[in-house]
Amino acid sequence: MNVLIVYAHPERRSLNGAINDFTVERLRNDGHAVQVSDLYAMNWKAPLDANDVRERNGDTPFHPSLDSKHAFENGLQSRDIEIEQDKLRWADALILQFPMWWFSMPAIMKGWVERVYAYGFGYGVGEHSDTHWGDRYGEGMMAGKRAMIVVTTGGWESHYGPRGINGPIDDILFPIQHGVLFYPGFDVLPPFVVYHTSTMDDARLQATCDALGQRLDRLWDDAPIAFRKQNHGDYAIPLLTLRDELAEGRTGFAAHVE
Amino acid sequence: MNVLIVYAHPERRSLNGAINDFTVERLRNDGHAVQVSDLYAMNWKAPLDANDVRERNGDTPFHPSLDSKHAFENGLQSRDIEIEQDKLRWADALILQFPMWWFSMPAIMKGWVERVYAYGFGYGVGEHSDTHWGDRYGEGMMAGKRAMIVVTTGGWESHYGPRGINGPIDDILFPIQHGVLFYPGFDVLPPFVVYHTSTMDDARLQATCDALGQRLDRLWDDAPIAFRKQNHGDYAIPLLTLRDELAEGRTGFAAHVE
Repeated sequence: MNVLIVYAHPERRSLNGAINDFTVERLRNDGHAVQVSDLYAMNWKAPLDANDVRERNGDTPFHPSLDSKHAFENGLQSRDIEIEQDKLRWADALILQFPMWWFSMPAIMKGWVERVYAYGFGYGVGEHSDTHWGDRYGEGMMAGKRAMIVVTTGGWESHYGPRGINGPIDDILFPIQHGVLFYPGFDVLPPFVVYHTSTMDDARLQATCDALGQRLDRLWDDAPIAFRKQNHGDYAIPLLTLRDELAEGRTGFAAHVE
Repeated sequence: MNVLIVYAHPERRSLNGAINDFTVERLRNDGHAVQVSDLYAMNWKAPLDANDVRERNGDTPFHPSLDSKHAFENGLQSRDIEIEQDKLRWADALILQFPMWWFSMPAIMKGWVERVYAYGFGYGVGEHSDTHWGDRYGEGMMAGKRAMIVVTTGGWESHYGPRGINGPIDDILFPIQHGVLFYPGFDVLPPFVVYHTSTMDDARLQATCDALGQRLDRLWDDAPIAFRKQNHGDYAIPLLTLRDELAEGRTGFAAHVE
């Protein structure tokens, strides 16, 4: 199978660099083809702006989504965006690997999402009407592909536990796992989280890689997170609220997992 | 009072541009001093990297937090970072204004947070031991200042409601409101959210500005979100889990609001 790793860390000689090297090697040893988008090494342009559209009339106000639609439909996207889209078309699985910074992905990776997820590719796919609110949340261009987050954080596991001060790790990652990955159709595997990075030593790194290796070996076997699909009857359309009889009385992110 | 608005939209001739203009004018009419960090206009460097430290020895691996600590303590930060830190010192209130992209702030603003929040300034403040886990979540360099998010989104209010498919807006914004704003000490006011932006017309824009204006007039009067402070007894230290008798049996972000 084909695996795309989108990776964001400014220093190759780092824990994240070691984990990235291990991941590539393990996947190749398992017989997979691997491409890495090393965003810092690529000097990836983070901000989405009018320069993302070729042959643009500068007199017209730039509209992030409508300009993206126009550029995607007419082959006028910036070349760096097209290359990443081709990698996603090629991939059977996507791994997002990053250090958690301020409870989300690094800016450079957020910019990858914003620019590569064009209108017509990452969103704005399928019929948009009052009875069908687009092919998203379980449908879309990434349907049939798998995705997984590999993330490191300085905080302890308890800080990200059910009642930990940072909030539960599943909730912290929900805007990415549900909003960035499930939205365009990926089946999202549980994340691989490395906590308390300041205490990492050789023995713990070995144990961490062993555990990650097992997850990589099962990339096509593990069950994805059971996020509810938008267009299979669980939500009222167009309000897009969860039907009363499902997860009765519950609110919050967890209600959107079956 | 002094208000810093950090603003991220690539097009001034946009809904966000109009809201930004209105905000500046209203605050000035109310007698406040206002500075705007217009990140796109400033061509703000989004990615945090080794170039953020002056006079760095390139042979040493770059370590995001330790290099930041060294640079902050020794006056070796990149000048653009220092300027933004001075604006934060000057400000009595911070407004983050942005369009919601992929359930978070635009990459360029995320990069503002990552680079301006240096170790010793945005985090790593105060004693760090097994009995005191830093001055954070209600304490820190921003203590006594107020903060508020002003955000636009294409989705409907119901899509972000308690059982809406995107997740509740308060949960979507929690990593920013709690993790980026409350963490270094800001008192965080409820967000001002503009939904369903595609239907914006002159009448609705007027009503939106009227409502926002009232919020701006009360910037120093409204009650902040009652996030629980880390160091006032609600959490076990160093595990940083909410004490059993508080919000009994509840998990998730909402448990961290009194």
